[in-house]
Amino acid sequence: MASDPLGASDKAQSSTAKPQNGSSSNKSAKPAKEKKPKQKAEGQQAAGDTRKKEMKKETKEGLSASKASSFADWYTQVVTEAELIAYYKVSGCYILRPGAYFVWETIQRWFDGKIRESGVQNAYFPMFVTEEQLNAEKNHVEGFAAEVAWVTKSGSSDLDRPIAIRPTSETVMYPYYAQWVRSHRDLPLRLNQWNTVVRWEFSNPTPFIRSREFLWQEGHSAFATQAEAEGEVFEILDLYARVYTDLMAVPVIKGRKSEGEKFAGALFTTTVEAFVPATGRGIQGGTSHCLGQNFSKMFGIDFEAEDRSKQLVWQNSWGLSTRTIGVMIMVHGDDKGLVMPPRCAQTQVVIIPIPNAKLSVEAKQAMAEQADKFAGELRALGLRVALDSRDNYTPGWKYSYWELRGVPIRLELGPKDMEKESCVLARRDTLKKEPVAWSQVASEVPKLLDTIQHAMYEKALAERDAGIEKVTTWEDFVRALDRKHLVLAPWAYEEEIEKDVKKRSATAEAMGAKTLCIPLEQPDLPSGTKCFASGREAKNWALWGRSY
Amino acid sequence: MASDPLGASDKAQSSTAKPQNGSSSNKSAKPAKEKKPKQKAEGQQAAGDTRKKEMKKETKEGLSASKASSFADWYTQVVTEAELIAYYKVSGCYILRPGAYFVWETIQRWFDGKIRESGVQNAYFPMFVTEEQLNAEKNHVEGFAAEVAWVTKSGSSDLDRPIAIRPTSETVMYPYYAQWVRSHRDLPLRLNQWNTVVRWEFSNPTPFIRSREFLWQEGHSAFATQAEAEGEVFEILDLYARVYTDLMAVPVIKGRKSEGEKFAGALFTTTVEAFVPATGRGIQGGTSHCLGQNFSKMFGIDFEAEDRSKQLVWQNSWGLSTRTIGVMIMVHGDDKGLVMPPRCAQTQVVIIPIPNAKLSVEAKQAMAEQADKFAGELRALGLRVALDSRDNYTPGWKYSYWELRGVPIRLELGPKDMEKESCVLARRDTLKKEPVAWSQVASEVPKLLDTIQHAMYEKALAERDAGIEKVTTWEDFVRALDRKHLVLAPWAYEEEIEKDVKKRSATAEAMGAKTLCIPLEQPDLPSGTKCFASGREAKNWALWGRSY
Repeated sequence: MASDPLGASDKAQSSTAKPQNGSSSNKSAKPAKEKKPKQKAEGQQAAGDTRKKEMKKETKEGLSASKASSFADWYTQVVTEAELIAYYKVSGCYILRPGAYFVWETIQRWFDGKIRESGVQNAYFPMFVTEEQLNAEKNHVEGFAAEVAWVTKSGSSDLDRPIAIRPTSETVMYPYYAQWVRSHRDLPLRLNQWNTVVRWEFSNPTPFIRSREFLWQEGHSAFATQAEAEGEVFEILDLYARVYTDLMAVPVIKGRKSEGEKFAGALFTTTVEAFVPATGRGIQGGTSHCLGQNFSKMFGIDFEAEDRSKQLVWQNSWGLSTRTIGVMIMVHGDDKGLVMPPRCAQTQVVIIPIPNAKLSVEAKQAMAEQADKFAGELRALGLRVALDSRDNYTPGWKYSYWELRGVPIRLELGPKDMEKESCVLARRDTLKKEPVAWSQVASEVPKLLDTIQHAMYEKALAERDAGIEKVTTWEDFVRALDRKHLVLAPWAYEEEIEKDVKKRSATAEAMGAKTLCIPLEQPDLPSGTKCFASGREAKNWALWGRSY
Repeated sequence: MASDPLGASDKAQSSTAKPQNGSSSNKSAKPAKEKKPKQKAEGQQAAGDTRKKEMKKETKEGLSASKASSFADWYTQVVTEAELIAYYKVSGCYILRPGAYFVWETIQRWFDGKIRESGVQNAYFPMFVTEEQLNAEKNHVEGFAAEVAWVTKSGSSDLDRPIAIRPTSETVMYPYYAQWVRSHRDLPLRLNQWNTVVRWEFSNPTPFIRSREFLWQEGHSAFATQAEAEGEVFEILDLYARVYTDLMAVPVIKGRKSEGEKFAGALFTTTVEAFVPATGRGIQGGTSHCLGQNFSKMFGIDFEAEDRSKQLVWQNSWGLSTRTIGVMIMVHGDDKGLVMPPRCAQTQVVIIPIPNAKLSVEAKQAMAEQADKFAGELRALGLRVALDSRDNYTPGWKYSYWELRGVPIRLELGPKDMEKESCVLARRDTLKKEPVAWSQVASEVPKLLDTIQHAMYEKALAERDAGIEKVTTWEDFVRALDRKHLVLAPWAYEEEIEKDVKKRSATAEAMGAKTLCIPLEQPDLPSGTKCFASGREAKNWALWGRSY
C-alpha cells in the first residue's frame, strides 16, 4: 500500500470531530416504538412517522443480528444503527447521513486530486436527456431502457415529450463532444463529473450496493488513438483499485469483463472485483470502459488528424459509486458494528474520560483537563478526534456507542491512569488494549492508526485469498461455490457456456455463478488445459462467483 | 476584504493550468456553419447537430455584441464563446463547462470549509419526494407547485404514484429531523448538501441566472431556541456576502426580504443583493431563511428541553447557487469577454512567448526555456498558470483568446524582452501593461493578482454606489429607475403598496420595480418621514429596483 494518500487534507476535516450524533443515545431513555428496518420491509416504512428508533440497551452492543448467521439483517442494522443510512419514503432511495457522506468525500478528495493531476477536468452536464438522445446508441439504450425514469409533467401540465433522467451520461455528453472536437489539437478531451444518476431497478434494493438514485463520478474521454484510450482505461482502473486498497483497506482483483457482462455499448470493460467473505459473493467495485469507436460513430465525433485525414475518436467512460462504502462495511464490519479503516473514518480517535463517583472535584477536573489536552494534541496532528465527556452515560455504554460507529482507536483515561500518567488505547479492529504513557500519546496514536489501516487490509486480504479456489473440473467448481468461495477456473470465453454455468450452478438457496472477470494477473495456464464447463481448449483463467 | 481565503488549496489546482480549450481556436480555420445562440432561440438549438461553432476572426475580439448596447446578446456570447456554458438540448438546462465548474468548485471549497468550522455537516438526501411529503407545508408547496417536475414512468411502466423531483429539500429532510431529534442534546442539528434541484420555470431561462436544473448548496438547521436560529441566519448571510466580496469581487447589500418576497414558508428571509450596472437591475445573490416553527409544527420536530418540557425546534434553511457565477460575469465582463477575479480564475496567468520569423533557432529556444522557467516559478507559488506556446496562432490572436477567457494577467515575452532580461505584464481588468525584470516576476505577479482582485472590487463598488439613489418622492423614484438605478426609498412595509409600485413603475420597455430588501445597514430615517408611495409614516428605508 502507498503511504498515506490523504496527508495534509485531513487537517481541514479535523475540526468536525466531536460527538456528533447524540440522537440515538438520548433515544435509549425512551421506550422503543419502532422496529429496526428489515431489508424485506424496505420501502414500506413511513417517513413522516414521528415514532422514534432506539438503541438496544439490554446488551452492550447496538446490534442484535449476527453477521455470520443473518447477514442481510446485520447489514441493515449496521448501516442504520451506526447512522450511515436512513431508509427513505421512496423505495430504493436512501439518505446518506454525515458519517457515510464523509467517506464519500474522502474518496472524492483523493480520486479527484489524482485525475486532476492526470489532466482530467470537472464539468457538469444536465440530469435530463431527451428520448432521441438516449436512443442514439442501440446496444447502450437496450442495456438501460427498462430502468429509465421519465419526467412527463411539470406542475399540472403535461410535457410535450417525456424527458428521461440520466441513467449514465454517454448520450448526454457525446453530442457536445462532437461539437467541441474538430482537430487533433482538441484531443484528448477528458471530462469528469460528480453527480447522481437514476436507475429505477426493482431487484433487491440495498443501501449503498443497489439504489435507484446513487452518487458516483463518471469520467468520459476522447482520444486520437486506441493506444491512448486503452492507456487511460488501465490508469483509471489502477486508481479505482487504490481507492479500495489504500483508502478502504479492501483487496480487489483487476480484470476484464466477459462479453456478456461488459457495459452496454462498450468495446471492453475492465473492473475491480471485491469479495464479501460473509456471503461468499463477489462484488463489482468500479468499472473502466473502453468504448472504442461505437459512440463516436453514432454521434459523429470525428477530427482532422495531423495528416489531414478525418478520423473517429476513441472513447472511454469510467465510474465509481457510493457502492464503495457498502463494500467496505460488508468486508470489515463485525457483530459490534462498523470497523472503519482509519483513512476513511470521520472520527479516528475517541477520548473517553472515566471519572467515578468517589473522585474529588479536583481530580475530576484534572482528568477533564488531561482529556482536553489529548484532544488538542491529536487534532494539532491533523487527526479527527472526538472527546466524549457526556455525563449521562456509563463508560461501557460509550464504548458500545463508538464501537458501533467503528472508530479505530478509543483512548480511555481512568483514575488509575491519572495516577500513573498513562492511558489505554483500545483498537476497534482487534479489540485489544495497550497502556501508553501520556508523553507517548502524540507519537503512538498516528502510528497505531497506520498499523490498524494496514492490519485491516492484511486481514481482509488473507480472508479474500482463503476464499478463492483454483479448480479445473465442474465438480470442484460446484463444491467451491458451496463453500462460499469464488472460483478461478479455465474458460474458453464462450458466452453460451457462461449462461449455462449460471443456470446449472443455481440452487434453491443461491443464485447461479457468473464470471466476475478475467483477472489481469493470470496464473500459468498449461497448454491443453480445458474449460471446466465445456471441455474445450481454455483461453484463460476466469474468476467466477455468485455476485451482488 | 479578508486576506486570500483560498491559500494553500490553490496549490492543488495549479497543475490543471494549461491551454485547455484548443477547440475554439482550431475551429477558426473552418468556415462558420452555425450562428451563436441567441437568448431568444434558447432551447431550439439541435444538440446532436454536428455543425461547429467558430471564433470570430475578422476582429481581434471574440464577441460581436456590445455589453452596453445589447446586453442579452453580449451575455449569451460571452458565456458560450468563453466556453463556460454550452446550450443544451433540453430547454432551460445548460452544460457547465470546466471553466465555469472551476469557479463553482472554488466557491464550494471556501464555503464548505467555513460551514464545517462552524459545525455544519454534509449529507445527501434523495432527489425524489412523494406528493404527500411535498404537500405537508401549505405556504411552501404553493410557492413551488407550478414548477415541480414529476416522474410518472419507469421504463415503459407507469409508477403507482407520481414522484416529484425536489425543487428544494425542506420536505425531503424534515420528516427525518423529526425522527432524529428527541432531546435538547440532539440540537443543534445542522446539515448541508451540495446537490442540484429542479424548478421547471418557463420565464426567460438564462445560463447561471435562471435554469431548470441548477447546482447549489442547501443548509438545513434545527435549534432549541429562536436566538440561536437567528444567529445562524446572519452568520450564513455573512458568509454569502463574503463569497461575493472576497472571492468574486462583487459588492452586495445585506438585507431582509419583504413579506411579499420572502421564501415560501419562512418566518423571514435575509438576502444578499447585487447590482448589474449594465442593465440597472438588482439580482438576488443568495438567501438565508429563518423558518421559525412553521415546518417543525407541520413535521412534528419537537424535543424534550432541559426542564423536561416538550418544545418545537426553530429552523433555518439557506442556499447559494451557481447564479453567483452569472452575477460575476455580468458585473465584471466587458466587450472583450470575461474579466475573471484572480481568486476564481481557472487560469490566473498566461505566459505568451512572442518569437518572430527573424529569430535564430537558438534565440527561439532560449525564449521557450525562459517561458518554461516562468511557468515553473509561478506554479511553485501555487498559481494557476497557462503557457501558450502554440505555433499556429499569432500573438494578437492569442491575446484575444485569453482576454475572452478573462485571464487576469498576461505575461508577454518578446525578442526585446529577452535582450533586456525583462517581460511585460498586461492586466485584463485595466488592459494596462508594465515591464518587469525577470528577477522580479515571482514577487510581482502574486502582488499584481492581489491588486487586480482588490481593484476589481473597488471598481464594482464605485459603480454600484453610483447606481443607487436615495429618494423620498414618487417622481424621483421613477426618474431614478429611468436612469437604470436602484432606489433607496422610505417605506411602511405595506404589501399592497409594493404590488402597486410594481404595477405603476412598469413601462413598455421595462418590468416594474419591487423591493429587493430592507438593508440591514440603514441610513438615518428622520422621524415623520413618509413612504414615497403611500405617503404614510415610513418604517425603514427599502432598496427597490428592477430585478432578475
